[in-house]
Amino acid sequence: MDNKRVVLASRPSGWVTEENFRLETAPVPKPAEGEVLVKNLWLSLDPYMRGRISDAKSYVKGVDIGEVMVGQTVGQVVESKHPTLKAGDHVLTPLGWQLYGVTREASKIRGDAPLSYYLGCLGMPGMTAYFGLKEIGQPKPGETVVVSAASGAVGSVVGQLAKSWGARVVGIAGGPQKCAYVKDELGFDACVDHKAGNLHRDLKEACPKGIDVLFENVGAESLDTCLRLMNVFSRIIVCGLIAEYNLTEPYAYRNMRSVLVNRIRMQGMIVFDWRERYGEALKDLSKMVQEKSLKTRESVVEGLENAPRGLISLLKGGNFGKQLVKLA
Amino acid sequence: MDNKRVVLASRPSGWVTEENFRLETAPVPKPAEGEVLVKNLWLSLDPYMRGRISDAKSYVKGVDIGEVMVGQTVGQVVESKHPTLKAGDHVLTPLGWQLYGVTREASKIRGDAPLSYYLGCLGMPGMTAYFGLKEIGQPKPGETVVVSAASGAVGSVVGQLAKSWGARVVGIAGGPQKCAYVKDELGFDACVDHKAGNLHRDLKEACPKGIDVLFENVGAESLDTCLRLMNVFSRIIVCGLIAEYNLTEPYAYRNMRSVLVNRIRMQGMIVFDWRERYGEALKDLSKMVQEKSLKTRESVVEGLENAPRGLISLLKGGNFGKQLVKLA
Repeated sequence: MDNKRVVLASRPSGWVTEENFRLETAPVPKPAEGEVLVKNLWLSLDPYMRGRISDAKSYVKGVDIGEVMVGQTVGQVVESKHPTLKAGDHVLTPLGWQLYGVTREASKIRGDAPLSYYLGCLGMPGMTAYFGLKEIGQPKPGETVVVSAASGAVGSVVGQLAKSWGARVVGIAGGPQKCAYVKDELGFDACVDHKAGNLHRDLKEACPKGIDVLFENVGAESLDTCLRLMNVFSRIIVCGLIAEYNLTEPYAYRNMRSVLVNRIRMQGMIVFDWRERYGEALKDLSKMVQEKSLKTRESVVEGLENAPRGLISLLKGGNFGKQLVKLA
Repeated sequence: MDNKRVVLASRPSGWVTEENFRLETAPVPKPAEGEVLVKNLWLSLDPYMRGRISDAKSYVKGVDIGEVMVGQTVGQVVESKHPTLKAGDHVLTPLGWQLYGVTREASKIRGDAPLSYYLGCLGMPGMTAYFGLKEIGQPKPGETVVVSAASGAVGSVVGQLAKSWGARVVGIAGGPQKCAYVKDELGFDACVDHKAGNLHRDLKEACPKGIDVLFENVGAESLDTCLRLMNVFSRIIVCGLIAEYNLTEPYAYRNMRSVLVNRIRMQGMIVFDWRERYGEALKDLSKMVQEKSLKTRESVVEGLENAPRGLISLLKGGNFGKQLVKLA
């Protein structure tokens, strides 16, 4: 039985291409003492991956050329030399873009939601939405919360959480289909189409009382435009800047003065900073999933060999909901 | 006896000029019940004044054409119909650019420091430094604090406070004379000359462990360059953006990504938000003045008619220390 894995072949400059990756075949590894051998079922694709394959400094070490691409997976334990995990267990792993792998860092999935949810609304994106909004955004009932990439894995949870906490929620998404979904299915109060070409005017109309909390997943024009509409004492969660990741020159922000004039608190976040408290978020979000008050949508690519295509699509906003690769 | 006052004649576009102001003569007003008539002795000139004469939205209402220019003064009560103030009292007032004025809002100066200090290190600039650094910057002993406009009214207090709280302090100032003063007289650990043309390289050398707290009074190149050197979990106090105030196009910031990568907390501040706590700052700062551990320097223009020239000089960085107009 052979393993298949995708390694980084070269670093992209600007947009990622399929040539930046290479599919390899290798023997399935044997677990050492303390490890499990896992068969991966689902691979998560996330915007942060663009940072890991770039040369620029980021918050963690990048992927080296020839190394297996990083990523979270949901899988099933095939063979265990781990003290508490056993064959058959479903686990969350950091095994990356491969069909099989050995690790000490698998954690058992205990809930009964669909397995892929543990990579989305009940996984890292869900935790990101929960802690960013609760700890940095701190929306009060009646305040206006704006979230960019509103139909995405993080944005969709942010908006539904903010609604459940009593805020007025406005999304920003790309295209009429995503906007309709955000409004009609996810229950946002409004959703603005950034592809329509009138972002400032449309956002202003959708936020007649200004913006109190901005949950920023996109950056560039989205962030710079929202800066013009922020209220006094408003908060900005800088969670992602996907619109910048593929630029060869960084975006030029023109509206920083708003930070001073409006006494804005703007804060960058990485979900790992709250890892001691994941249980708290998982409990709240699982309850919402059970009660069907947290809806989610997935974009699924079939087969490991198509993972590069899936990532490229995600980076271009081609996904519609949480981007996954189905491995088995 | 006639009053003299300076009114706004026209709004500047870009740099302020003397033609934007007009000197007028008017009768000295009579105090109504509850008011005092004050003879102004010192007028404070501050960067925020640029915002008040511009058309752009700011945090408070601007000065209308024909209105007396705003500003804090220190003066002496000439005649009192106020319940607690009496003739001869020294007071802090919002009377602006004029020799005499009536107001209900004068507050008695109780300390024994030189009167002009209550417009500088013991006045609004001192409060700004104190609360911005303490509440937003939160420097820990051994951390690196950078402050721009380091020889100015706010920056000089920021640096000396940060030193007294155990931080390593690096200033940014314009020209070798100011840098020498900041280092040798104010006791900063280093001071970088932004006019030397190598801001990034020089700052990097002066901050070998990166920047933990940035107290930003200038903005534009200063802020954008510091963003490249900020540490993980660092803080930025956005207190002033004087380098932007005279630009007709806002500055283009290129290094916003650092906010995400380094989980920076960046916050705009206006000192009025802490007005309930001014007493706390005044007590601490007065003690430092008495002990001679808080040094200050003043740039004095003589005569009300020269106030416009003083403001223009301040906006161009021509002042060296707290900019004042001596009125009597």
